[in-house]
Amino acid sequence: MDKNSVSCEHLNLRQTAKFLKQHDRFVILTHTSVDGDALGSAYALYYGLREIGKSAMVLLADDIPPKYGYFATETVTFPTEGAVIVSVDLADKRLMGKYEEEFGDRVDLSIDHHISNTEYAARLLLDANAAAACEVVYELLEQMDVNINDMTAKALYTGLATDTGCFKYANVTAKTHLIAAQLYEYNIDAAEINRLMFDTKSKNLLDLERQVLQTAEYHFDNRCMLLAVTAEMQQQTGCSGTELDGIAVISRSLEGVLAGVTVKQTGEDVFKVSLRTYPPLSAAEICKRLGGGGHVAAAGATVHGTLSQVKESVLNAVAAVMEEADAGSSVN
Amino acid sequence: MDKNSVSCEHLNLRQTAKFLKQHDRFVILTHTSVDGDALGSAYALYYGLREIGKSAMVLLADDIPPKYGYFATETVTFPTEGAVIVSVDLADKRLMGKYEEEFGDRVDLSIDHHISNTEYAARLLLDANAAAACEVVYELLEQMDVNINDMTAKALYTGLATDTGCFKYANVTAKTHLIAAQLYEYNIDAAEINRLMFDTKSKNLLDLERQVLQTAEYHFDNRCMLLAVTAEMQQQTGCSGTELDGIAVISRSLEGVLAGVTVKQTGEDVFKVSLRTYPPLSAAEICKRLGGGGHVAAAGATVHGTLSQVKESVLNAVAAVMEEADAGSSVN
Repeated sequence: MDKNSVSCEHLNLRQTAKFLKQHDRFVILTHTSVDGDALGSAYALYYGLREIGKSAMVLLADDIPPKYGYFATETVTFPTEGAVIVSVDLADKRLMGKYEEEFGDRVDLSIDHHISNTEYAARLLLDANAAAACEVVYELLEQMDVNINDMTAKALYTGLATDTGCFKYANVTAKTHLIAAQLYEYNIDAAEINRLMFDTKSKNLLDLERQVLQTAEYHFDNRCMLLAVTAEMQQQTGCSGTELDGIAVISRSLEGVLAGVTVKQTGEDVFKVSLRTYPPLSAAEICKRLGGGGHVAAAGATVHGTLSQVKESVLNAVAAVMEEADAGSSVN
Repeated sequence: MDKNSVSCEHLNLRQTAKFLKQHDRFVILTHTSVDGDALGSAYALYYGLREIGKSAMVLLADDIPPKYGYFATETVTFPTEGAVIVSVDLADKRLMGKYEEEFGDRVDLSIDHHISNTEYAARLLLDANAAAACEVVYELLEQMDVNINDMTAKALYTGLATDTGCFKYANVTAKTHLIAAQLYEYNIDAAEINRLMFDTKSKNLLDLERQVLQTAEYHFDNRCMLLAVTAEMQQQTGCSGTELDGIAVISRSLEGVLAGVTVKQTGEDVFKVSLRTYPPLSAAEICKRLGGGGHVAAAGATVHGTLSQVKESVLNAVAAVMEEADAGSSVN
């Protein structure tokens, strides 16, 4: 529909519901490196629109990881010409992957929960207080008075659970739990979903974790834990990409730790550094010194050098930001 | 009050509220090896009774583990003579530890969620569908129209979260989430509670986990994972008791695993075997063959012998129950 929109109209739930009801064919897009909330919000919207007789398809730049197969499957396809383009959980059109060129400048509606949404779409339904895009989609389906079926409920629950570490993190609100309670009214088998999402590891990943724990270094009176994932470990175990996300969680699980560092080799003399911090440290500040960036509690940078050089650079950056924090606390 | 009660009167919420309001001095007991729900339900009741001007004390057979210090502290003490004795989260008087002799036969009221409650008390408020004793205490405080303060809310949330693996397990219901939503209205910092409860490990425990992962054995086409915790590992890292509970979780996290086995040395040639299973296997069935028992998904046994003898016994029991399950599924 719209093309190269220059302004982005902010819609509320009622206006968004009205917009969706006025049209009949929808293409749903989300971000690459799909996760539970990206797939959950895309498929919940897909099932919801079909419940009210609309045509809809989910268009993914990635293959669907098999573990999401209980709600996410290949959908019908149809020509996108004339269809309404909706994105979910997509803060920036650059995260569309291979679909950016075709759809980047013609998204009709973005449904999101990222405060960093770049307003690339003609219309935006944004709730930056929502823990997951699935919270926003749930409220939208409620507003549209759409029947929620078991598949919709599974998709929504998956997004809620995965974006909150199973209701563990600071983004959870009373509303998150209220929606979860509603979803328990359907046949979702939440315990099995949670087992798949949180408690299932491949033998190779368990082996990689064992190897990574052997690299553990403790610095600055145990306020910093450092783990290394070498190229050799990744080759030997066949674990890579998002499979390794859990390693950064280990690095910040040490009692009393303020900075959890994971140094992951991505090429010869190239390492991806992941920082997880607790107050008063800022992961973003540390990574800025390494040429990277991110959020206060989680940030990253790419650093060139040998493993020991990279470790030294990171520890220097951590030390500098720790000193600033110590100085700040003694001044105040 | 009562002594050697022979019959146990089942009360509903309204009757229990009335009983508590009729009395003025309360001693609150719970089970040994205290966990988040034992302490949470004990302290929530304690804070609640004090809000309505009652005298109350929590009497613990264990020291309070420091990580629960944000809501569980030493309470005032007073002579127990003439006080009403209330137990929470205590299925059997034999779990009272050092207080069994003094209070085992004079509990006036048991507030519980274990279907296995042995009716040792004169009165019983039981909700076997509640995920945590804290669910029952929350409903009781609501029924009594007691003001819930921030400490009460922290105690209740802790019990809810810890007994459900942070809302992950099959015992969670819509009600669990509804109560959690209510508790978010107070100043509880749930994310910090969850970090303390779920994402904080000592350096020694991380080291023990590393050593335990090195013992990993895979059997029966990876349908069984076996981990060993030797006495030497426990001595070297100083980790023991409930600190080791997380190891059993690792043993069942392998993709496709049906039986996760942890073999923990408790003496010379004595091992505590922990079984975690998924359908169609029954942990209780496997442990029965080893002289132990438990639930369908989690059970245990104490087995004598060297580590390799114990492993062999356990694997034989797993194999036998697997064969039965396979035979059962081919018949059906």
